[in-house]
Amino acid sequence: MGCIFCGIISGDIPSQKIYETETVLAFKDIDPKAPFHAVIIPKAHIKSAMEITGENSPVIAEIFEAAAKIATDENLAGGFRLVNNCGADGGQTVDHFHIHMLAGRVLAWPPG
Amino acid sequence: MGCIFCGIISGDIPSQKIYETETVLAFKDIDPKAPFHAVIIPKAHIKSAMEITGENSPVIAEIFEAAAKIATDENLAGGFRLVNNCGADGGQTVDHFHIHMLAGRVLAWPPG
Repeated sequence: MGCIFCGIISGDIPSQKIYETETVLAFKDIDPKAPFHAVIIPKAHIKSAMEITGENSPVIAEIFEAAAKIATDENLAGGFRLVNNCGADGGQTVDHFHIHMLAGRVLAWPPG
Repeated sequence: MGCIFCGIISGDIPSQKIYETETVLAFKDIDPKAPFHAVIIPKAHIKSAMEITGENSPVIAEIFEAAAKIATDENLAGGFRLVNNCGADGGQTVDHFHIHMLAGRVLAWPPG
């Protein structure tokens, strides 16, 4: 099987897109855990946070720029939480680097 | 009162540093929520994720590069979770952008 997030980027797999640039895509999580729950991904297939190096890291900066813009667009004035799961202990379920963005309620501590 | 994380960077406030570059610092969280719990910060005082723009975002990429190196240095082979809290709903308690890095146990879902 191919990568589900690469399928979303190509359009082969449907998604509710909310923000897109040349290098970054954000779409609604299909199993939301907060009133607002999006997933922000690099269009480049980076497997996980363990694969981030000086070569491919600029897109991570662009993901955080996207998060600030999404927060403004979506009126998330109360704040939000950004989460990256890496590997089994982190709870990573899709092997394409992604950042969860949750908002619209108070996020509890600890974060899982 | 000044910024506690700027105080840690300057050395005026003690911390258990685990990783440092010219632009990034990582230290152990004083109230750990997992067997491994560090905080990774930019040395530049960026207030929150809402302030990330194309001007200051390169250091966010460097923070993620640092996380991958820390995971290797600390033998976090099982994985980890990276968390940024922004604003009141996100649970942000220090107004200096920071990423929590938790590992050493299975992190549950949802993330707070």
